[in-house]
Amino acid sequence: MEFFEILKTDNNSRARLGKITTCRNTIFTPVFMPVGTKATVKAVLNEQLAEMGCEIILSNLYHLYLSPGIKIIKKAGGIHNFSNWKKAVLTDSGGFQVFSLSGIRKVIDNGVEFKSVIDGSTHFFTPEKVIEMQIEMGSDIMMVLDECSIFNAPDNLIAEAAERTLKWAKLSIAEYNKYGDNKNSKLFGIIQGGFNKDLRKYCAETVSELGFGGIAIGGLSVGENRNLTVEMMDHTVNYVDKSKPLYVMGLGDPAGILEAINCGVDMFDCVLPTRISRNGSAFTQTGRININNAKFSDDFSPIDDCCNCYTCRNYSRAYIKHLHKNKEILSSILLSIHNLYFLFDLVGKCRNAISNNNFNNFKNNFLKNYNNVRPNP
Amino acid sequence: MEFFEILKTDNNSRARLGKITTCRNTIFTPVFMPVGTKATVKAVLNEQLAEMGCEIILSNLYHLYLSPGIKIIKKAGGIHNFSNWKKAVLTDSGGFQVFSLSGIRKVIDNGVEFKSVIDGSTHFFTPEKVIEMQIEMGSDIMMVLDECSIFNAPDNLIAEAAERTLKWAKLSIAEYNKYGDNKNSKLFGIIQGGFNKDLRKYCAETVSELGFGGIAIGGLSVGENRNLTVEMMDHTVNYVDKSKPLYVMGLGDPAGILEAINCGVDMFDCVLPTRISRNGSAFTQTGRININNAKFSDDFSPIDDCCNCYTCRNYSRAYIKHLHKNKEILSSILLSIHNLYFLFDLVGKCRNAISNNNFNNFKNNFLKNYNNVRPNP
Repeated sequence: MEFFEILKTDNNSRARLGKITTCRNTIFTPVFMPVGTKATVKAVLNEQLAEMGCEIILSNLYHLYLSPGIKIIKKAGGIHNFSNWKKAVLTDSGGFQVFSLSGIRKVIDNGVEFKSVIDGSTHFFTPEKVIEMQIEMGSDIMMVLDECSIFNAPDNLIAEAAERTLKWAKLSIAEYNKYGDNKNSKLFGIIQGGFNKDLRKYCAETVSELGFGGIAIGGLSVGENRNLTVEMMDHTVNYVDKSKPLYVMGLGDPAGILEAINCGVDMFDCVLPTRISRNGSAFTQTGRININNAKFSDDFSPIDDCCNCYTCRNYSRAYIKHLHKNKEILSSILLSIHNLYFLFDLVGKCRNAISNNNFNNFKNNFLKNYNNVRPNP
Repeated sequence: MEFFEILKTDNNSRARLGKITTCRNTIFTPVFMPVGTKATVKAVLNEQLAEMGCEIILSNLYHLYLSPGIKIIKKAGGIHNFSNWKKAVLTDSGGFQVFSLSGIRKVIDNGVEFKSVIDGSTHFFTPEKVIEMQIEMGSDIMMVLDECSIFNAPDNLIAEAAERTLKWAKLSIAEYNKYGDNKNSKLFGIIQGGFNKDLRKYCAETVSELGFGGIAIGGLSVGENRNLTVEMMDHTVNYVDKSKPLYVMGLGDPAGILEAINCGVDMFDCVLPTRISRNGSAFTQTGRININNAKFSDDFSPIDDCCNCYTCRNYSRAYIKHLHKNKEILSSILLSIHNLYFLFDLVGKCRNAISNNNFNNFKNNFLKNYNNVRPNP
């Protein structure tokens, strides 16, 4: 069975319908992957995710390495056993976290040294070690160690980071190949290069040649405006191996998802739907609302009239506003279920639209209704 | 249909099996009632409660009066519609909260004045107003306004509070009767009297004569040791109308539940199972554990080997410890499900034991295993 198969390409856009086959399940693409950084998608049960049609969640090597430690997860029989999630898991290497969250870190050519945010202890990640630990966790899709530049970094630093990421990509694939066929995990390479088109092209072509199972675009959605994100995605896609699943990292608002699919992207993830839930925000067909708004106090309609999620079938805006105002955990639970369902439903509708050659139309209609989109949520 | 029916009395104890019939459902007693102070049992979905066999939850007039306000709940069509809970709701009047939580309050003979903990505004509860608001909320079982003395209050204050509670009980039943048969709510009287046996006897007899739908014992589990709680329960039960359901307020640890049932108590409630969940504690057949204990880091067994709850069927101690350490909401969800199930299961086993005239035996065996019981949790 092929790992990735393209089933259909839209006639009027680069959007495509595909199928990823892991040893656990079949994942139709485009697919939205919720983020379970610490082996839990915040405030949601795995059963609730599965009921919503979720086939793959993200987890994060960096966070799990720091707590509970890879040894514990290995002893549990891998991350699926540890967290009781039966479907696929994609693990991020934590490159992004090392470079953005760790207060003190030092990049040297063969890896990155960082201090634990938990106890200040010093740790060292190499491309090879990151592969080894992800295999130990039983990850279905692993990411290489990469160096993600901050938005507005000087050109020379962006170029250095991109070059180092390519060097690490080569070390990663060599390490990965050492495991031979005794592994169920696929390894994805990552394209960096900031907002420099030449650099993006160079990285896309180089990564495409290395024989990864899939290709990711990193370093976008890091603070730039939405038009620039789309421009860079659109540009980069030109130079990737299109037979591989293409993943844009850290993108997950409704409008961004539609733009990514339009560029030919197959996979995306974001903490957005669960994070905004904890702040009382919710996606609706007509844009994002915040449940704290006074007008919802006696609004007994569901969060979104068109939504068929558990929350919208059973609970009102007034009740959820009451819960959120009173800091009740149930408000995070109900809003997380709604916001995740909203994205699964949206991406499911995109897949339908692609198979009917109707993606452009669907996208334009959705965006017209979703009128209070923020430029860069 | 009778509101309360005694189906069986244990041959060797005062424990009894009964049945409460509301307009919504049938509730077999003894029954544990989880607390949903603000119209939500913390961290648990109503569906999860119903799956566990929960037939009745508590809510609190005082808290709901302050937020979102009774007007909103009435506009929603009552508390069941507002919170999407289809089964029975018992509402506490909030007497206990007014007397223990409100910073500034002033008791006068016809009611109690208090300041909102939310905005400092002044409010006034009378026995009559408390009935009116509970009827507006659509409560199935309402509690009278009472004055609960603090533990170790001087004798004269306890006597005054008990006398005032009796006076209010009479005003409450008169107000309740004004609604005639146009109500589905039953009203329960409350016995106060601190730890004075003569006073408890007097209050029990007086409340029993007033024609309430049920009788509650208040003012216990307020800081005294467990032996004293049991002694006062046991004493008070002698003087109540035994044809009515008997409810001990605020009691909900496993050992306390068994003692209460042994005295002939039919109903009890406590925040304990959900509160300890948020602190990482869990009931087991062999006593309470705290999941933060280092030895659980690589313990892949369930919280309680004997438990058949959703959490124990699917998740390990090691995983829940990891979640709790990382302040993940899922740890509160999973532990709340377990701890509530544990009590529902325990009380269900008590009902079985009563029908088999085996309650004493069951109680003694359970307490022998549950060896690290705290004197007064």
